[in-house]
Amino acid sequence: MELFDSHIHSEGRSVKDLAKMSDHGIKHAVSCAFYPIRPLFAETLIDLFRKLIEYERERGKKAGMNIYAAIGIHPRCIPREWDKALKFMEEVEGYIAFGEIGLEEASKEEVEVFKDQLKLAKKLDVPCIIHTPRRNKEAVAEKIFEILERIEFPEELCLIDHANAAVAEKALRKGYHVGLTVQPGKLSVEEAVEIVYNFGDEYFVANSDTGFSESDYLAVYKLWKELKNEKVLLKNAKRFFRI
Amino acid sequence: MELFDSHIHSEGRSVKDLAKMSDHGIKHAVSCAFYPIRPLFAETLIDLFRKLIEYERERGKKAGMNIYAAIGIHPRCIPREWDKALKFMEEVEGYIAFGEIGLEEASKEEVEVFKDQLKLAKKLDVPCIIHTPRRNKEAVAEKIFEILERIEFPEELCLIDHANAAVAEKALRKGYHVGLTVQPGKLSVEEAVEIVYNFGDEYFVANSDTGFSESDYLAVYKLWKELKNEKVLLKNAKRFFRI
Repeated sequence: MELFDSHIHSEGRSVKDLAKMSDHGIKHAVSCAFYPIRPLFAETLIDLFRKLIEYERERGKKAGMNIYAAIGIHPRCIPREWDKALKFMEEVEGYIAFGEIGLEEASKEEVEVFKDQLKLAKKLDVPCIIHTPRRNKEAVAEKIFEILERIEFPEELCLIDHANAAVAEKALRKGYHVGLTVQPGKLSVEEAVEIVYNFGDEYFVANSDTGFSESDYLAVYKLWKELKNEKVLLKNAKRFFRI
Repeated sequence: MELFDSHIHSEGRSVKDLAKMSDHGIKHAVSCAFYPIRPLFAETLIDLFRKLIEYERERGKKAGMNIYAAIGIHPRCIPREWDKALKFMEEVEGYIAFGEIGLEEASKEEVEVFKDQLKLAKKLDVPCIIHTPRRNKEAVAEKIFEILERIEFPEELCLIDHANAAVAEKALRKGYHVGLTVQPGKLSVEEAVEIVYNFGDEYFVANSDTGFSESDYLAVYKLWKELKNEKVLLKNAKRFFRI
């Protein structure tokens, strides 16, 4: 069985860890853009996008895994002159999605950066991995839904990530895809299983968010063992990301 | 027993890997600046230095390990306008050394960037971790020695890294410290042990160079098991880096 981890930060994992993921069937993963401190410069994000597209893909190959790059300005990583990074996103090739983008505290600046990225994604027809925060998840998700609707963002390009049951229910009703993140502080395997049982398996994808800090890089495999659902663990992600 | 890994790239290792190093006695490590693709922008290096100083130290703490930052422009990571990064090196605080700096192919640009960093290190009294390449190691090391002598670089600030027996012998004769890198393609544990037996233990430090690609993060522990030498595995590094 092939599994798909829809959201990792491969940079923070050794080739050995990635090879272990591959050994457990995780043959596809999207490596999302994130910088672990707030970068001062948009240039740092541009080189980060290049690194994800060029270098992380190669590390994936060494580990026996397809690593696909997602590029974007995370709400916690907004540098000054962030429009330079946006301009690069418009020009570069070799990525599979914009991500992670979204809102953390829903500040005015975050909303502006998020909106401009969504508009670009709509223009270029690019799937988006949309982060929801740990704090005030439901209120911030509401804000995200409002923005998506206001700019008439195409449903099929929208993946609401790190969802809990309440956010998943609303997102599904709007026709969005939903990411279930099995990670300490987010969902347990049991909670993810329960959400799929309650809401159906058509629009869910699964991920570990593994990367720089503590997290289980085999989370998606562990979810597979309990759920045994090929849609959630592979097919929905392939369809959403058009692989 | 406490061990000291004088050259890692902690960014490419999970907190779990770092905690395993700590469990094996590796309580001190210098995390060196390197960007795995050639960055387009000096700004990327500035944010990288900030990341090493601010974030990697915190990840070390979580893992029970002292991670000390080394900042510098690696010869394979020279961006345009690299002098901006050099200027930041002059102003920032919180690092322990310049590194890795040095030469890869000894191009004119590499030599210029290396020299300017050495001059700054001499002015600021900063220890330097000096990379020697896999290819043409001895010829490039000769070039490095020439540059060091031409600018009258203080011997006590100079660590010639990734040495083989021939490079070690010459470096020791000039009064430099020498880094033994136990890593596939560099030295085996046995080769490192033999070099120390042949040349004495006063000026050697040991490292794994573990990071983004395949390498053994327990290399320094494995060397300790064979060598049982506190100078090479701890004290010389503490003296050189002034800890």
